[in-house]
Amino acid sequence: MSTNKVQIFDTTLRDGEQVPGCKLNTKEKLIIAEQLDLLGVDVIEAGFPASSPGDFISVVEISKIVKNATVCALTRANKHDIQAAAEALKYAVKPRIHTGIGTSESHIKFKFKSTPKKIIERAKEAVSYAKTFVDDVEFYAEDAGRTDNKFLAQICEEVIKSGATVLNIPDTTGYCLPEEYGAKIKYLKDHVKGIENVTISCHCHNDLGMATANSIAGIKNGARQIECTINGIGERAGNTALEEVVMIMKQHPYLNLDTNINTQLLYSTSQMVQQHMGINVQPNKAVVGENAFAHSSGIHQDGVIKNRETYEIMNPEDVGVDKTSIILTARSGRAALAYRAKNIGIDLTKMELDEVYPEFLRCADKKKEVGDSDIQKIINFSKIYSNRIAS
Amino acid sequence: MSTNKVQIFDTTLRDGEQVPGCKLNTKEKLIIAEQLDLLGVDVIEAGFPASSPGDFISVVEISKIVKNATVCALTRANKHDIQAAAEALKYAVKPRIHTGIGTSESHIKFKFKSTPKKIIERAKEAVSYAKTFVDDVEFYAEDAGRTDNKFLAQICEEVIKSGATVLNIPDTTGYCLPEEYGAKIKYLKDHVKGIENVTISCHCHNDLGMATANSIAGIKNGARQIECTINGIGERAGNTALEEVVMIMKQHPYLNLDTNINTQLLYSTSQMVQQHMGINVQPNKAVVGENAFAHSSGIHQDGVIKNRETYEIMNPEDVGVDKTSIILTARSGRAALAYRAKNIGIDLTKMELDEVYPEFLRCADKKKEVGDSDIQKIINFSKIYSNRIAS
Repeated sequence: MSTNKVQIFDTTLRDGEQVPGCKLNTKEKLIIAEQLDLLGVDVIEAGFPASSPGDFISVVEISKIVKNATVCALTRANKHDIQAAAEALKYAVKPRIHTGIGTSESHIKFKFKSTPKKIIERAKEAVSYAKTFVDDVEFYAEDAGRTDNKFLAQICEEVIKSGATVLNIPDTTGYCLPEEYGAKIKYLKDHVKGIENVTISCHCHNDLGMATANSIAGIKNGARQIECTINGIGERAGNTALEEVVMIMKQHPYLNLDTNINTQLLYSTSQMVQQHMGINVQPNKAVVGENAFAHSSGIHQDGVIKNRETYEIMNPEDVGVDKTSIILTARSGRAALAYRAKNIGIDLTKMELDEVYPEFLRCADKKKEVGDSDIQKIINFSKIYSNRIAS
Repeated sequence: MSTNKVQIFDTTLRDGEQVPGCKLNTKEKLIIAEQLDLLGVDVIEAGFPASSPGDFISVVEISKIVKNATVCALTRANKHDIQAAAEALKYAVKPRIHTGIGTSESHIKFKFKSTPKKIIERAKEAVSYAKTFVDDVEFYAEDAGRTDNKFLAQICEEVIKSGATVLNIPDTTGYCLPEEYGAKIKYLKDHVKGIENVTISCHCHNDLGMATANSIAGIKNGARQIECTINGIGERAGNTALEEVVMIMKQHPYLNLDTNINTQLLYSTSQMVQQHMGINVQPNKAVVGENAFAHSSGIHQDGVIKNRETYEIMNPEDVGVDKTSIILTARSGRAALAYRAKNIGIDLTKMELDEVYPEFLRCADKKKEVGDSDIQKIINFSKIYSNRIAS
């Protein structure tokens, strides 16, 4: 069975940058866009040109420097926004306009004070108008996660007729569970005429911690694009984390899914985004967190020292992390202490290890982490050296 | 259909505390244990008594103060560990010993250099021995996520015969996808004699961002306990986040699943654990992150101001957060500016809003966030006040 390629649509510079405190200037956006292009993302959503003059300029400048990826700009379903996007994208080698409208009952009723019929008209008009500027038009059905599937299928079919090339099915509020989101994608695959000619895209939010699982459920049911951000940043609890979905596909070959991402750049890209946006991931962030490959409990350390795969399902080097860490705490056993002592040149015998281990535990119970200098002190204190010299 | 109760097994003080840099002293552990008991968790895993003298004392002291929850202590499958756990738990009103052994091929072969048959013998002996001290014995099949289902069913059946009351099926390395993990639980439900008399427990790790989704898949397939930590802390990329699984069940009533958690204490408990462990969650952490309920893009703010449910699936007050934040950035529209101006006592007319909005955008393009004092300055600068006085 041949491998199915999944497009990675990075929205770090648009949905990610909506985070309070994450605002970047144009220069910073260019540095990140260049890195995303190197990383191998298929689409870079560069901004929302009609939203502010700064955003407009950033999309123009990013369009000029991106070599491989499609550059995409967001709009609402109105002519002014679409004109601004088209104008901002004029230097892009592969431009895409991303337009759309809210489709859930709540959005139609409260946000637009409109009717389903009028919403379909506005959607068709927006896609048709965007098509007058670019070939590649992505349509988003905002709050699709809470939209009735029948109506969603109807609007999708209409915008395909108007020329949409990609259908974005966002779980805007992060409410869906994986089975529900997967079933929604399957419903569209089964009920929308012409869907075989377009790409279905997953855009999930993490309000209940389900963005990654929902995106994978979408792909398993026929979607072929994932919208995501580096470190999962974004509005509220954020978007799907790029590094998580990419590594899930890489580490589960039986899924027959693949991306164009150079995974060895994941860690450095994560670090770059953290620095520029001033928002650090937590140490236990999957794939790119400081502790993602750190083993500290005795049982785990012992296992990893015997055979890495006992507790590691990814090779840290595959995501650009130098090495596994064996960190010494009160949870560490003799094997870890011996391993770390050896790293600083002290080869302890079994008897010596038994002798220093209780002192190591006393030290570890007092400190959060036992460092190389502590190991040296503990061993000096135990008088192993003087015994060695004496014997 | 009656609601199914899911037990919440909190391991913040055991698996959570294994995080490098998270070590707590006994006093801090007691403060957190007291809060967990208030929060309504069903089981508090208090530590691993045989691992260090400090851990032993902590389990003793926690056992003395916990009023409602079961207090649980971890052991390996050996007499020394089990004796230490029993001794440490002697003051607990509801004590539980949590013993077990690695069951995957990798664990049996590399970690124990043993055979499947011998592993089953050790498991049975450990459970039987633990039963001589306490009624409530939980068995963990370490690395169950990568264990052959047939062997897993066999060892589960044997430890039930030896008296296990809870079967913990850990995805120790965080490798499983939800369908796979759910199918594993279903396999056990369908193939293990006596399984109807015990509780199946999910213990998932987040290496690929799937811990929450896997735990919910387990519950949907018949498990009735989730092992989790506050903020999802734990070894490597951490454990299932308590706050996420609890809110998923609460916000999806059609699942007919419920917990004993007082959700209004989730935010304060998260804050307490962050402070004592010195590890902050990222701003976009689901449910408890600083931005979890913050809206910053114009489209979202406009929607939320019109009707909160447009972009909010949880009431922030339900998790103990005071209010929704409307944060002003370059992504904010006129509605948000008007809303925030009104909050500081300035009721802008539509014309006045049109007048100040471009200046607001210039300010926002330069700053990460526009504060109340900035709004005041922008309005002063626009001379609306002097016009008002003149007219």
